[in-house]
Amino acid sequence: MPQKLIGKLVIATHNAGKLTEMRDLLAPYGVTMIPAADLGLPEPEETGGTFIANAEIKARAAADRANIPALADDSGLCVEALDGAPGINSARWAGPARDFGAAMAKVEQALRAAKASLPFKAHFACALALAFPGGDMHSFEGKVFGELVFPPRGKLGFGYDPIFLPEGYARTFGEMTGLEKHGIPTDGSPGLSHRARAFQIFAQACLGGRTVQ
Amino acid sequence: MPQKLIGKLVIATHNAGKLTEMRDLLAPYGVTMIPAADLGLPEPEETGGTFIANAEIKARAAADRANIPALADDSGLCVEALDGAPGINSARWAGPARDFGAAMAKVEQALRAAKASLPFKAHFACALALAFPGGDMHSFEGKVFGELVFPPRGKLGFGYDPIFLPEGYARTFGEMTGLEKHGIPTDGSPGLSHRARAFQIFAQACLGGRTVQ
Repeated sequence: MPQKLIGKLVIATHNAGKLTEMRDLLAPYGVTMIPAADLGLPEPEETGGTFIANAEIKARAAADRANIPALADDSGLCVEALDGAPGINSARWAGPARDFGAAMAKVEQALRAAKASLPFKAHFACALALAFPGGDMHSFEGKVFGELVFPPRGKLGFGYDPIFLPEGYARTFGEMTGLEKHGIPTDGSPGLSHRARAFQIFAQACLGGRTVQ
Repeated sequence: MPQKLIGKLVIATHNAGKLTEMRDLLAPYGVTMIPAADLGLPEPEETGGTFIANAEIKARAAADRANIPALADDSGLCVEALDGAPGINSARWAGPARDFGAAMAKVEQALRAAKASLPFKAHFACALALAFPGGDMHSFEGKVFGELVFPPRGKLGFGYDPIFLPEGYARTFGEMTGLEKHGIPTDGSPGLSHRARAFQIFAQACLGGRTVQ
């Protein structure tokens, strides 16, 4: 069993959307969240070849700089007909301006160029890595499968949410509230989003269940 | 307690000297060692800011590619009067030809340029990271303190061994046999080298003690 987490935790992300989701997910636990930006921690280069490798690079850098445990997230959209692209390059497809409207258009163009046929199968993946200063690291991955729809639908969420229709649902992630998308059912059944699912595994392993309902 | 290690283990290093030491250190345990090069695994870019971060990058890349647990090492020489240099750049100072004669001369020049006074305090650090495919990672660091001597002495070991005189010893690592340098005492007392010490912590946490004497 991994070391139990008590007290303060640096959240190693500079992405406001992720930070909000992480804050909501961590809310029920007795953990004080400190955004990495509040500590002036720089963003390390994401040179890993997988979501987990990149989450680990970010968690390690933050934990060692802050000298307290750090939780990092790396996530993205993997499109079957594009051999998993944009994958770990999901944020890069949006460019330095983080223009996900352009990134979603790029996905549509790539599908057309690949002469992909409907349904455009895809999944979101989220890796979470928890690093202890100078020591252990625990990494977890959650996925949610579905298909892509064009044009994008909905203004909620962030990133590629408006083109992602999770299996069994009639609304895209862009049309869902945060609670619906990444809420964690209290009966122990899996949450909907990739981040909720990764978080459930993380919470079970590292937080020892909810301390506050 | 971290997951116990049984069976096969990829050794994520392409450095022959490290591979030999790791093989010796792992010999007493019931673990089958597979060098990363034998699996055709590429060497990932070492972009981390610490020994542990770099060991983790290498272990993660190998574990996920090979789909079996991987152990990686990152180590180097940290010189006090040089603010810890060459540190994580220890191998880079030797250049692509891995010319450690040149690297040791560079250390001597840097000490002279810094007008450092005797004794030239330094330590070797060794980080070990054990990654499980898509999952946990356990990281450990061992250090050995001492001072630097010039000119280099001895032809044993590798890297900066000939200029490193461990505290309490009259011979450099370059003048010691592998057994003396990184042998692990059977009475539980700490080994001498940074790698032996990191390995002891690793073995205690992940190998569950010796299975074969």
